[in-house]
Amino acid sequence: MNTIGTRFRVTIFGASHDTCIGCVIDGIPAGIELDLDYIQKEVDCRKPVALIGTPRKEEDKVEVLAGLKDEVTTGIPLVIQIKNSNTDSSKYEKFKIIPRPGHADFPAFEKYGPAHDIRGGGQFSGRMTAPLTAAGAIAKEMLLGIDVKIAAYTQSIGSIDDPAEHTFKEIKRETKENPVHAADPEIALDMLNEILTAKDDGDSVGGIVRCLTEGLPVGVGEPFFDTLDGEIAKMMFAIPGVKGIEFGAGFKATKMRGSIHNDPYSVVDDYLIKTDTNNAGGVLGGLSNGMPLDFKVAFKPTASIFKEQKSVNLGKMEKETLLIEGRHDPCIVPRAVAPVEAATAIVLTDLCLRGDFIA
Amino acid sequence: MNTIGTRFRVTIFGASHDTCIGCVIDGIPAGIELDLDYIQKEVDCRKPVALIGTPRKEEDKVEVLAGLKDEVTTGIPLVIQIKNSNTDSSKYEKFKIIPRPGHADFPAFEKYGPAHDIRGGGQFSGRMTAPLTAAGAIAKEMLLGIDVKIAAYTQSIGSIDDPAEHTFKEIKRETKENPVHAADPEIALDMLNEILTAKDDGDSVGGIVRCLTEGLPVGVGEPFFDTLDGEIAKMMFAIPGVKGIEFGAGFKATKMRGSIHNDPYSVVDDYLIKTDTNNAGGVLGGLSNGMPLDFKVAFKPTASIFKEQKSVNLGKMEKETLLIEGRHDPCIVPRAVAPVEAATAIVLTDLCLRGDFIA
Amino acid sequence: MNTIGTRFRVTIFGASHDTCIGCVIDGIPAGIELDLDYIQKEVDCRKPVALIGTPRKEEDKVEVLAGLKDEVTTGIPLVIQIKNSNTDSSKYEKFKIIPRPGHADFPAFEKYGPAHDIRGGGQFSGRMTAPLTAAGAIAKEMLLGIDVKIAAYTQSIGSIDDPAEHTFKEIKRETKENPVHAADPEIALDMLNEILTAKDDGDSVGGIVRCLTEGLPVGVGEPFFDTLDGEIAKMMFAIPGVKGIEFGAGFKATKMRGSIHNDPYSVVDDYLIKTDTNNAGGVLGGLSNGMPLDFKVAFKPTASIFKEQKSVNLGKMEKETLLIEGRHDPCIVPRAVAPVEAATAIVLTDLCLRGDFIA
Amino acid sequence: MNTIGTRFRVTIFGASHDTCIGCVIDGIPAGIELDLDYIQKEVDCRKPVALIGTPRKEEDKVEVLAGLKDEVTTGIPLVIQIKNSNTDSSKYEKFKIIPRPGHADFPAFEKYGPAHDIRGGGQFSGRMTAPLTAAGAIAKEMLLGIDVKIAAYTQSIGSIDDPAEHTFKEIKRETKENPVHAADPEIALDMLNEILTAKDDGDSVGGIVRCLTEGLPVGVGEPFFDTLDGEIAKMMFAIPGVKGIEFGAGFKATKMRGSIHNDPYSVVDDYLIKTDTNNAGGVLGGLSNGMPLDFKVAFKPTASIFKEQKSVNLGKMEKETLLIEGRHDPCIVPRAVAPVEAATAIVLTDLCLRGDFIA
Repeated sequence: MNTIGTRFRVTIFGASHDTCIGCVIDGIPAGIELDLDYIQKEVDCRKPVALIGTPRKEEDKVEVLAGLKDEVTTGIPLVIQIKNSNTDSSKYEKFKIIPRPGHADFPAFEKYGPAHDIRGGGQFSGRMTAPLTAAGAIAKEMLLGIDVKIAAYTQSIGSIDDPAEHTFKEIKRETKENPVHAADPEIALDMLNEILTAKDDGDSVGGIVRCLTEGLPVGVGEPFFDTLDGEIAKMMFAIPGVKGIEFGAGFKATKMRGSIHNDPYSVVDDYLIKTDTNNAGGVLGGLSNGMPLDFKVAFKPTASIFKEQKSVNLGKMEKETLLIEGRHDPCIVPRAVAPVEAATAIVLTDLCLRGDFIA
Repeated sequence: MNTIGTRFRVTIFGASHDTCIGCVIDGIPAGIELDLDYIQKEVDCRKPVALIGTPRKEEDKVEVLAGLKDEVTTGIPLVIQIKNSNTDSSKYEKFKIIPRPGHADFPAFEKYGPAHDIRGGGQFSGRMTAPLTAAGAIAKEMLLGIDVKIAAYTQSIGSIDDPAEHTFKEIKRETKENPVHAADPEIALDMLNEILTAKDDGDSVGGIVRCLTEGLPVGVGEPFFDTLDGEIAKMMFAIPGVKGIEFGAGFKATKMRGSIHNDPYSVVDDYLIKTDTNNAGGVLGGLSNGMPLDFKVAFKPTASIFKEQKSVNLGKMEKETLLIEGRHDPCIVPRAVAPVEAATAIVLTDLCLRGDFIA
Repeated sequence: MNTIGTRFRVTIFGASHDTCIGCVIDGIPAGIELDLDYIQKEVDCRKPVALIGTPRKEEDKVEVLAGLKDEVTTGIPLVIQIKNSNTDSSKYEKFKIIPRPGHADFPAFEKYGPAHDIRGGGQFSGRMTAPLTAAGAIAKEMLLGIDVKIAAYTQSIGSIDDPAEHTFKEIKRETKENPVHAADPEIALDMLNEILTAKDDGDSVGGIVRCLTEGLPVGVGEPFFDTLDGEIAKMMFAIPGVKGIEFGAGFKATKMRGSIHNDPYSVVDDYLIKTDTNNAGGVLGGLSNGMPLDFKVAFKPTASIFKEQKSVNLGKMEKETLLIEGRHDPCIVPRAVAPVEAATAIVLTDLCLRGDFIA
Repeated sequence: MNTIGTRFRVTIFGASHDTCIGCVIDGIPAGIELDLDYIQKEVDCRKPVALIGTPRKEEDKVEVLAGLKDEVTTGIPLVIQIKNSNTDSSKYEKFKIIPRPGHADFPAFEKYGPAHDIRGGGQFSGRMTAPLTAAGAIAKEMLLGIDVKIAAYTQSIGSIDDPAEHTFKEIKRETKENPVHAADPEIALDMLNEILTAKDDGDSVGGIVRCLTEGLPVGVGEPFFDTLDGEIAKMMFAIPGVKGIEFGAGFKATKMRGSIHNDPYSVVDDYLIKTDTNNAGGVLGGLSNGMPLDFKVAFKPTASIFKEQKSVNLGKMEKETLLIEGRHDPCIVPRAVAPVEAATAIVLTDLCLRGDFIA
């Protein structure tokens, strides 16, 4: 349903044009000091950027309704609310009858019936990543307590790739303060152009977000089923637009020989076990192996485009041409970087609690 | 932990060289007639094949310990046991000290300590897919009751790809009765050679399994978090060796424009809504959309190779060279086809029960 | 943690003097029309009554933050908020050092540490039953759809017992519109006096709430562990002050012979199976048997009394005398009647959904 | 369903006349040395005793199928099997049509249909407490590691009560080595007679089991919903025949004034906080308070009696007289003492793991 996690449990609520969106976070120990400015800043990272973002303007102010006293957690569920203000729902009702290609309109209508809240995409809107990012910010604060850090960046937009295998240090926030959240500021310009070109065509583009961790201890993950990679993967598919995920060498590993793919072990500084390469992406047998967790998430091009599309009229059961109006991002990849980090943080916090890595 | 599913719940037990492996399946309604021969046949599909499989010979006989009366389910948990017989545990204990690159030895030892059962890879062995396949066979029987079918095949082994976008009908079991379970018998020969060449080198290869469904109704999946794609993805990462998953166009979608990627809707036979293409891979917003679910799973090359590898001695904290003995598959992809189908069936049965698609 | 239920899932949040209290309800199908006035009326049933209630005055206005459009559920989680307004937290902090006998102060401080929110009893306050009652009102609406009704009443207060085995019809809301929510208006007066006498002494009294259902179908409950009686029991102990529960003849059954206790079956109206007696309280083997579910819940006397009590000073680790100030009910039993009904409704809705009794 | 617990998770399987009964225990850390003799001894405690027990003779040999190596846990699920051997299923099929009063026959048939395994009571048989007791024995071993002990005894059989408030020390195993597992050997004789008298009448009797703990730390329990008392209560109702539970003064508390019921705090030995009385039964606000957990469980008289009973014929929908044959205990209370201890141990282990009381 709408809850994920076992010991750090996030329940998401609200929809794009509902009164509010938000989440309940259960499992935060009493006595954790929360930095509300930091949480707000994280949520702001997924705001649309001028030129390439949706014109919908939301303040996205994070309010804590319960569970906090003097900015310190009290051990009961923390409730976060983000109000929706800038909603224009006029243009959505017809998509229940004439579903937008690439959107959840058709299966959602079939599943939930006419009462489905389709306004602004409802619960299928990318807007749901705002409370997810807020929850992730809290998770990040908890992970910092055991020196675990997470950073993601835009690795590709459409045909523009950043081929470098950036290290964690290279992709820290400062280096990716460009509108597309790329690790390389020069490639960022090309990516920006790729988006603008698509936008000018009334079209959209996809891309890849790469995510890395630093400091993740060995043994995080709860096989057989609750593997580190499996839990991360499940979570990523909750982010709208995700179509694939791969760890380390990923799909390229299928073309490698074992002798090349196997990461050889080394002793570092007389007490650390590291691998010389990281084809495994930091995970073996569903457990972290002490190397950076390293995975890539594939985002499809935004489904909302401003070109005529072929659809059907579910009332008349005949074909119909659709032209979407409204406010949309031509590319959601840059805005997905913060949610990917946040979603990762939520999963890692849960697994670190489960494995007693967080006291 | 070792349980997956909400309404069709599978708990896996045992380890590679334990007395037995098996599973408990909870949530099967009373009164379902099970075809034990069919279950056995499904489990046999993952048996090693001469030349390219491990020499370890296991009968893999599926025994039902409880929950069945006169081959009909009684509504209580079904317990399946597969005995381990052909075990040779002599060669594994040392991997706790000198971990095998690419295996879970190192993180498992760190996590579970000296009591970890490393014999034959313990719970991290591909052998665990035998009870998974048995559970999946039962799930398949339940899905057949609502006309949902699943088929997977080997799409690539190392450098040998099958570029065709085979339809469900083309990949039914009969057409892939070749040792590598490929959909195209001619490409199967090349794949076989690819494996044999790697084997001759004491090396291993990976590959890709593609999985398709037929008859999946619209609306299967339980967003926000328990999406169809997310649940499938989590499950796949429980299969040893999986490093990536993508749905429909997957990573290729990141290079597409929205106008190309969006699948246009059509009315078929006056009452069915289908899309002209299936770039979405049958899933939109975490819900099935009535098209075949279509995803690819990336398997890394088998970690066990017969070449000298660089490792470390955890006791002495110094580097050490490792030469693995034992019995291993040079490529696990062909043997993973049945488990991929089974794992898919388990997830779909659970989600179909949750969405009341199965009465 | 703070969530109960599998298919009708209630997460409770907030604390007595937090900004608000509330709950998230997941699992309500899309398209259910909610009667917000009814929900408000149910919540108002647990308001303190003049003379025998706390002087703390709360409006307890039920607000729906998300999940509802035009008073119809949209299929996503429903979020209910009840603001706290009339809080006076000045008198509570010292109870962390000098715990009140009979309250959770001591174990809560030991468990959660100094960050525990003890104001007004925090999460251990009877005030938490307000959102529970709101959630229960929605559950009641869902149960009404399958003609299942619930009614509870005050069976005893202190030494005043209502010995009659009232039927469901006798205890419907109208007949218990007395300040103690008793089924018999004359006994109600004695009960009221019992409370007032205790109050005059600066003391408190306990009592018993009896709960009955009408129309519960046969077979509700999910053994082995998720039995009808077990789930009800667990839920009741979440209501502050509960110390015992018994079904049907309950503890009296321990003194009966089987030949007396066994309820004989009869055919009623040629198609219904009923039992002549209901010593089982409507539950056999953890399943409803078609008779009214019938159970009694024991409430202890309110822990907050206005007499000097013997306690300890946890800072100095020495004995200390405590005199409690603040605003408290001399008897919480009458105010617990609505929460008992609500809690029952939540459990029954969940089990009815799990058993496919609600479509 | 058939699983209980969050971190110490027990899944029960099998039925009275199935091939076997057993359980899977997930969440036992790797490296725990198990004393199989102790587990066997615990299971043997619930064996029928000559004269007052069923003539059905089962060896009840506990076999570990997986998860153990050299009597040490390996961190994967532990699978316990107890074979059924002495089954006589001939007399049960007719109870699907003519349900036994007081048994689950009728609701089970309605719920599961004709495929329900009614032989020997199926999953509703008291026999299911054998694997529960085995799982509890392991839980007890884990609790012993943090010096938590559990002891229960028969407090009443029919009209014979043991009025003493025995302390934990008085009820240790040695003192209750009488056939009815009473704490007082003299009262035990009266209880035995009570059972024999009922047996001679072809009738049955019920009774009360009281359970105490020693050494339970402060703060065990996970409110709001997963309270210590609530979890214990839910678990107890899984034991066949339970009709009520009360903690401390329990139902008697409803007649007490707060000034009497509140347990005053004292400092003991300069560092321990204890209460002078234990009316709370060791639990406040759903949390253990450092006093012995103290609760009573009400068992109804065995439903199977050898007198003619009034039932119905579900096929003909008319009344029918029933005379039960077969093998039954005239009183299950003595045999329930070990399961009550075991069930308590399972809950406490789970909650102690959840609260990080067990490392």
